[in-house]
Amino acid sequence: MPFVVDQPRSSSKVRGMQGLHLTADLYRCRCDTEWLTDALKLGDWCVQAIEAVGLQPVDRLFHTFPATPAGAGGVTATVLLAESHVCLHTWPEQKGVTLDVYVCNFGEDHSAKARGLMFALVNRFQPEWTEQRSLDRGDSDA
Amino acid sequence: MPFVVDQPRSSSKVRGMQGLHLTADLYRCRCDTEWLTDALKLGDWCVQAIEAVGLQPVDRLFHTFPATPAGAGGVTATVLLAESHVCLHTWPEQKGVTLDVYVCNFGEDHSAKARGLMFALVNRFQPEWTEQRSLDRGDSDA
Repeated sequence: MPFVVDQPRSSSKVRGMQGLHLTADLYRCRCDTEWLTDALKLGDWCVQAIEAVGLQPVDRLFHTFPATPAGAGGVTATVLLAESHVCLHTWPEQKGVTLDVYVCNFGEDHSAKARGLMFALVNRFQPEWTEQRSLDRGDSDA
Repeated sequence: MPFVVDQPRSSSKVRGMQGLHLTADLYRCRCDTEWLTDALKLGDWCVQAIEAVGLQPVDRLFHTFPATPAGAGGVTATVLLAESHVCLHTWPEQKGVTLDVYVCNFGEDHSAKARGLMFALVNRFQPEWTEQRSLDRGDSDA
């Protein structure tokens, strides 16, 4: 899948550093186990989800951890964005996932895209319950 | 620099998903500008700082953004850890940096290492002021 061409990260209209960081911790995920253990499958789907909401992937790194006595190892999927980053960590033995979606509002406000992406990511794993937080970042009068 | 051999991410002693996520937003950094624009220099230093506190890098991804009319572009440096991840984003035109240090406490409590690493990272950039947060993650009774 081709990546979009990089765009400069700053604009005179909006302070580049101001942004929104969403976190979600997912418990007792009911999705197929492969979504917790197949880094390439998960990572590729994640990139598609990012593009679907209009955010811009610029690079990606997927890592699979070794199996444990409890079964297949977890994965880490990181996608760097023109707008900041997305990180996913999975714990298949616990059916758990943690998610980070962090966007900076250069050029325009990307908060709605971030919230839409987080909604899609959480739904992918079908957790029984989640803990979610929203952090405003980089918005001091610098 | 060689990376350590991967270790399984779970332990029967400690729930693997429970962890600590530290964030820091840095303003008016007084360090040399190259720390905000040279992804390789920053990333390599970051990996050394991670190893110095006893955390385990398993992969890394450094990205440089294009220059803007305001000057050299910012960088994103991501290091995946056996314990989760470290992400840095820089905004050289604003002398700003955002940092994430996220560790999961599998096998042992890595919180002190995370706090030590964050202290080292912040000091590297010599900010005039910072906003820092500490999030407990993945600790519901899953």
